[in-house]
Amino acid sequence: MAELTKVFLDEDEIPTHWYNIAADFPNPAPPHLHPGTQQPLQPDDLAPLFPAGLIEQELSTQRWIEIPDEVRDIYRLWRPSPLHRARRLERALGTTARIYYKYEGESPVGSHKTNSAVPQAYYNREAGRMRLTTETGAGQWGSALAFATQIFGQSCEVWQVRNTYESKPYRRMLMETYGATVTPSPSELTAAGRALRERFPDTPGSLGMAISEAVEVAAGDPDASYALGSVLNHVALHQSVIGQEAIKQLAKFGEQAPDFLFACAGGGSNLAGISFPFLRENIEGRMNVDVVACEPAAAPSLTEGEYRYDFGDSSQMTPLLKMYTLGADFVPDPVHAGGLRYHGMAPLVSHAYHEGLLRAIAIKQREAFAAGVEFARAEGIVPASESNHAIAGALRQAKQAAQDGTSPVILIGVSGSGQLDLPAYSEFLAGNMLDA
Amino acid sequence: MAELTKVFLDEDEIPTHWYNIAADFPNPAPPHLHPGTQQPLQPDDLAPLFPAGLIEQELSTQRWIEIPDEVRDIYRLWRPSPLHRARRLERALGTTARIYYKYEGESPVGSHKTNSAVPQAYYNREAGRMRLTTETGAGQWGSALAFATQIFGQSCEVWQVRNTYESKPYRRMLMETYGATVTPSPSELTAAGRALRERFPDTPGSLGMAISEAVEVAAGDPDASYALGSVLNHVALHQSVIGQEAIKQLAKFGEQAPDFLFACAGGGSNLAGISFPFLRENIEGRMNVDVVACEPAAAPSLTEGEYRYDFGDSSQMTPLLKMYTLGADFVPDPVHAGGLRYHGMAPLVSHAYHEGLLRAIAIKQREAFAAGVEFARAEGIVPASESNHAIAGALRQAKQAAQDGTSPVILIGVSGSGQLDLPAYSEFLAGNMLDA
Ligand SMILES: Cc1ncc(COP(=O)(O)O)c(C=O)c1O
Ligand SMILES: Cc1ncc(COP(=O)(O)O)c(C=O)c1O
Repeated sequence: MAELTKVFLDEDEIPTHWYNIAADFPNPAPPHLHPGTQQPLQPDDLAPLFPAGLIEQELSTQRWIEIPDEVRDIYRLWRPSPLHRARRLERALGTTARIYYKYEGESPVGSHKTNSAVPQAYYNREAGRMRLTTETGAGQWGSALAFATQIFGQSCEVWQVRNTYESKPYRRMLMETYGATVTPSPSELTAAGRALRERFPDTPGSLGMAISEAVEVAAGDPDASYALGSVLNHVALHQSVIGQEAIKQLAKFGEQAPDFLFACAGGGSNLAGISFPFLRENIEGRMNVDVVACEPAAAPSLTEGEYRYDFGDSSQMTPLLKMYTLGADFVPDPVHAGGLRYHGMAPLVSHAYHEGLLRAIAIKQREAFAAGVEFARAEGIVPASESNHAIAGALRQAKQAAQDGTSPVILIGVSGSGQLDLPAYSEFLAGNMLDA
Repeated sequence: MAELTKVFLDEDEIPTHWYNIAADFPNPAPPHLHPGTQQPLQPDDLAPLFPAGLIEQELSTQRWIEIPDEVRDIYRLWRPSPLHRARRLERALGTTARIYYKYEGESPVGSHKTNSAVPQAYYNREAGRMRLTTETGAGQWGSALAFATQIFGQSCEVWQVRNTYESKPYRRMLMETYGATVTPSPSELTAAGRALRERFPDTPGSLGMAISEAVEVAAGDPDASYALGSVLNHVALHQSVIGQEAIKQLAKFGEQAPDFLFACAGGGSNLAGISFPFLRENIEGRMNVDVVACEPAAAPSLTEGEYRYDFGDSSQMTPLLKMYTLGADFVPDPVHAGGLRYHGMAPLVSHAYHEGLLRAIAIKQREAFAAGVEFARAEGIVPASESNHAIAGALRQAKQAAQDGTSPVILIGVSGSGQLDLPAYSEFLAGNMLDA
């Protein structure tokens, strides 16, 4: 009988609560500020953009927040997600490490983003908000929200960063298949977009710009909400289902704890989602996991940014967030990992980093794609461009282990599928990829 | 507690044997013939193209054939595949039917084709054949073989039907990511290709043409094998894991048997794979499942073809197969379901149809895509173009049930993911799809 390769859980093992790390930080995370008053943000300040249920979560320090039945019921379409032991990859690397990966690419749209899109659409529907606007980079978040709003009968308008809108049309088609409308950003439809186009006529766009446009539209319509796919506390909260499941699944493999956990970090939501339940174990002394944020060298907010209050968007329309940032007007090189092209890092992740609860490394895209190809050829799955950064970090560690003769347990967060990122793989294989 | 939405099985519930329906047919299926002698094919006749392990399976009438450990071990990367109850779709349709779908789209390449690609690569490796050639339509089979050969260290050359090679480059990129080489067919690289290009200068290509090219190359090199992604008995055999799992999973949902089973049929392998284990139950009197092959109106071999001996390829290089056929030189309209554009139907499926063990319907592609969009908006998953034909058949039945007030159990074989078929969805949504 061969050894176990992957562990699913039963549907009734989908977590019943989201885990909120704000309850467990040794020192509290700095609050978001109102840009006008510079005072801690009040629920009312967020009301034009978000429904009450999400505002409450954004400001909450309660440890466990119950997942509504209706949301959990939709999670069942793809959760629990599988935890794989990467036996073939281990063999290909000749490593003595035991490598596991938690794979979020089997969600309907191919990434972890649905974990937050569904509750965001739900709380908006609860508040009677039937029109949602959002930004998207490579399109993973936009398609997740398009899927979720379709389920709740809402309309969905997506501003997609122009360079991916043009170069990678498949995710736009996916959003449209779910019934959303998609506009390349910066666009002529908003004041923010027009101003950005005037200032940067040839811009490839950025997440920061697309956020400005989506926020402007939502703020101008009391029945509309804006939905953000990362960065904010409530998004990190929703993603905590990933880490909670991974802890149970590792136990089924007979592992007490990973020694290392690698996850890619754009806005920080999948990193938060997989790592915060492990950080809680660390904080309470039950585990000692070395959590490593893998960011793109093209947008190295943790490793090269400043820790200060900054805006979440290019046009300075959002609240002020205390975060590691490259500056709200930073426009990263148009690397393929569109979902990582963000100037800042989630306040909760930034705080954890500042407190020394996790560390960070920056990875260039050629190393990331080399790791992705190695992974695909061993495990079959072609990972998302973003996820390749986590895999690259893990491969460094696994190769180190082979040299040192140690046998660490390495957990990788593989946040999505790369089937719609294939043009990037093609460019890499042809040797034409910019090494940014 | 919400109701069960999907059932996985544990890895040790992956079938240990393939099921061979040839053992259970009330009347035996007609043998393949040697085109020169018109006599039943002997193992030696197949030796230039296939390794001994596959030839034995092709001609076998043994009921259960053990799955080698090494193959089963690779199946673990994605098997058992999930069986879902389509609760949201049922609600959207307002049907009283209980609808289930067995989803093969979570294999690394996104379809059932890996179920046969892996054993085919394996038996070739056992025979020391390290160079494989094949054809592919939309690219699902080619990418499955590219993945499988990569695992066994073999080289892989794929002839891809020209119209999809050009219009849908993503699967070519996927094959290349696994290390395969891909050539549009008909090509200048083979005598068959050159002859076809001269006869049909503007041809969009067809599976029959691509098969001729791949066969020619393999036949010319004693160390090479040809691998076929459908039609032949050993391919149907390998796919039997699907139906075996589905029977166990339906039982976990508390269902005794489906009343209807819908699967799309191109060459017939996924239809065979999901339905033959149920046909065995029918033959032995334990179930009474109405098995419905859903073929494309553009290549209606069962519903409009003749049941006679014909070649498997355009250039008449293969053995003669007794099958429902539109003629080996039939070139179907370039519909999007590239994997269904085949002139014939698997001999085992053809025999089952001729004996009245299953029935068939033909579906035009607009109805198929309308069903696919309805499915995606309810269940999240975007099905493969091919699979949409099965869904369309099931929706007809479910709507009928709503009218009749009956509550049948409907099982759909969703053979693959449509993430790489999105341009077809886009064309459908824009109203530009040819209704062929
Ligand atoms: C697959 C995938 N991984 C990671 C990210 C980065 O976002 P975050 O850091 O919020 O997880 C994205 C963003 O689009 C993504 O699509
Ligand atoms: C997803 C999918 N379904 C069905 C088919 C049709 O082949 P078969 O009839 O052998 O299952 C194909 C062929 O490429 C396919 O890719």
